[in-house]
Amino acid sequence: MDDMECMAMALELAKNGCGFVNPNPMVGAVIVKDGRVIGTGYHAKFGAPHAEINALASCEESPDGATLYVTLEPCCHYGKTPPCTEAILNAGIRRVVVGSLDPNPLVKGKGIKQLLEKGIDVTEGIRKSECDRLNEVFFHFIQSGKPYVVMKYAMTMDGKTAAYTGDSKWITGNAARENVQKDRHRYSSIMVGIGTVMADDPLLTCRTEGGRNPLRIICDTKLSLPLTSKIVATANEVPTLIATSCSDLQALQAYENAGCRILSVKQTDGHLDLTELMTKLGEEKIDSILLEGGGTLNWSALQAGIVNKVQTYIAPKLFGGSNGKSPVAGLGVPSPKDGFLLTNTAVSYWGEDILIESEVMSDVYRNY
Amino acid sequence: MDDMECMAMALELAKNGCGFVNPNPMVGAVIVKDGRVIGTGYHAKFGAPHAEINALASCEESPDGATLYVTLEPCCHYGKTPPCTEAILNAGIRRVVVGSLDPNPLVKGKGIKQLLEKGIDVTEGIRKSECDRLNEVFFHFIQSGKPYVVMKYAMTMDGKTAAYTGDSKWITGNAARENVQKDRHRYSSIMVGIGTVMADDPLLTCRTEGGRNPLRIICDTKLSLPLTSKIVATANEVPTLIATSCSDLQALQAYENAGCRILSVKQTDGHLDLTELMTKLGEEKIDSILLEGGGTLNWSALQAGIVNKVQTYIAPKLFGGSNGKSPVAGLGVPSPKDGFLLTNTAVSYWGEDILIESEVMSDVYRNY
Repeated sequence: MDDMECMAMALELAKNGCGFVNPNPMVGAVIVKDGRVIGTGYHAKFGAPHAEINALASCEESPDGATLYVTLEPCCHYGKTPPCTEAILNAGIRRVVVGSLDPNPLVKGKGIKQLLEKGIDVTEGIRKSECDRLNEVFFHFIQSGKPYVVMKYAMTMDGKTAAYTGDSKWITGNAARENVQKDRHRYSSIMVGIGTVMADDPLLTCRTEGGRNPLRIICDTKLSLPLTSKIVATANEVPTLIATSCSDLQALQAYENAGCRILSVKQTDGHLDLTELMTKLGEEKIDSILLEGGGTLNWSALQAGIVNKVQTYIAPKLFGGSNGKSPVAGLGVPSPKDGFLLTNTAVSYWGEDILIESEVMSDVYRNY
Repeated sequence: MDDMECMAMALELAKNGCGFVNPNPMVGAVIVKDGRVIGTGYHAKFGAPHAEINALASCEESPDGATLYVTLEPCCHYGKTPPCTEAILNAGIRRVVVGSLDPNPLVKGKGIKQLLEKGIDVTEGIRKSECDRLNEVFFHFIQSGKPYVVMKYAMTMDGKTAAYTGDSKWITGNAARENVQKDRHRYSSIMVGIGTVMADDPLLTCRTEGGRNPLRIICDTKLSLPLTSKIVATANEVPTLIATSCSDLQALQAYENAGCRILSVKQTDGHLDLTELMTKLGEEKIDSILLEGGGTLNWSALQAGIVNKVQTYIAPKLFGGSNGKSPVAGLGVPSPKDGFLLTNTAVSYWGEDILIESEVMSDVYRNY
């Protein structure tokens, strides 16, 4: 097995942490000695041991003189666990092969520097772009302190999110809808506007087997969420946060009694100040948001510059309708040259539906 | 060279006829003897010799005993040219390898049957799906007698064909727009509604080097096309047809004097009867239409069931706007289950833009 193959194996291991390690990165590690894999590990859960430690612990023979493959630069600071660089040195690892550098200001090259100073042979950047992509959420969060926002919507080939009657069940097929469920597990929270709750009365839970429910964030400037909604009714089982500008303590109390948390956010131009909301959510270690809001919230989010990624599911059908609902509404830009630019588009198929993923140009993550 | 390779070469040759052979099919032929290509040909122009004849004529040595590869079943009837089967027999060809069967009722397996009866070894169906796809226009036209309609539009990732101000220059980039120009050469006509002419005053010519201008068809129920429009002004150089329900002879005369042709079409529910229009265009041997109409005409065309293929260009940008223009407008379907279904989606990239091509479900061409 060469470096590329070993790193590919480490990448696959890393993905096992998806949805469980936030706001930590997903990391995988493989230990190879004399051409044989003698240990593997991954970061499995927030607060639990790092991938390197798990890989060392899994070794069936002494890792002395072995090579460690790890998708992300080993940490060199005391966090919830002791630094991995120490454990690597103590174990007698002779060579370390790294995928991504860690943009965490506490690490940022220092991990590799420490290893080099101790005479370890270090190779950087093996499968770097894949390793970077795996942790786009972490990279954004650790550098900005704000959640990585993924705007997701499903539309027809002619850009409609509903028939003219408002009926939207369903635009896409099973495979696409199941993939959305996996993303509800992957990202730590889900956000919608009050309009979506009023129209659909959704649950916003994760229905993937073994999946974790995201924190439900309802943007509700004037606190008009019905106490009888499914969201409020299940707030004791599923974490629920209402972002509101309402300051009527009595009104707020009713939601808190039902199990909701209230996050007070100021109002700007009649809407919730989404920039302030992102700062506050970041402070609470919410590293990512799946934005499943309607056209109005999507437009506000774009205008506020908080959207990092766009997921456009396209169903192979046409609805027509000059008054059909559109994925991004609001006022809109006046001229094509003012459009929000997307980049790094990637196309995948989910059953008969097409998913186009892209990054918002101004927010493209650049590693160093 | 094996059968697959020879047929691939014949396919590439066939494409040289694109835009020049309508309403005939594109056909390519390769003649191989003792493992060497001794002749090649393609159908270059409507009314000119068929691919097989050109390939035979190009032979550098006697084709006696050779194998002929041809993308479409050889004809066996007297049309503008004598039957190819005769020429093949006379030349002493021993084996014929065919891509598509010819759905033309005058041929439809009879060509192959004739060759088999004369003791020729025939192999069918080599690269059949590629050969079929090459001639989707011909296959549709020869069986239905009506033009193959390709609905083309360009929209943003959020389904807008213009900013809310109506400004639509430009949605897509150069590569995508150049590909549209090639399609104006490929398809024999281009069709728009009067709304598009009023809004954009377009020329609707083919600006590809060496390209042929499509017949310009303007759907203009009430004959409100301005005599000062670029279309009317250039009608003496570029074939122009106005489909209208207007019967005011004096009004019509002004357009005819300017070089336009008038096609009288009845009105249904206040719109041109597109079914009748297709029948009349088919009678005039218009085999294909690139429908570059706005949302209203696109909706009418879908409702009339005349659309065969949909080309959706998607630019990686977001405009937003609850009142933005949409590629298919009109009333729209009331429920997702009523949507027009698309199938056989294929994705390609044109610069940064994405093209999704699909076929309208009820109109998918099925070869036999």
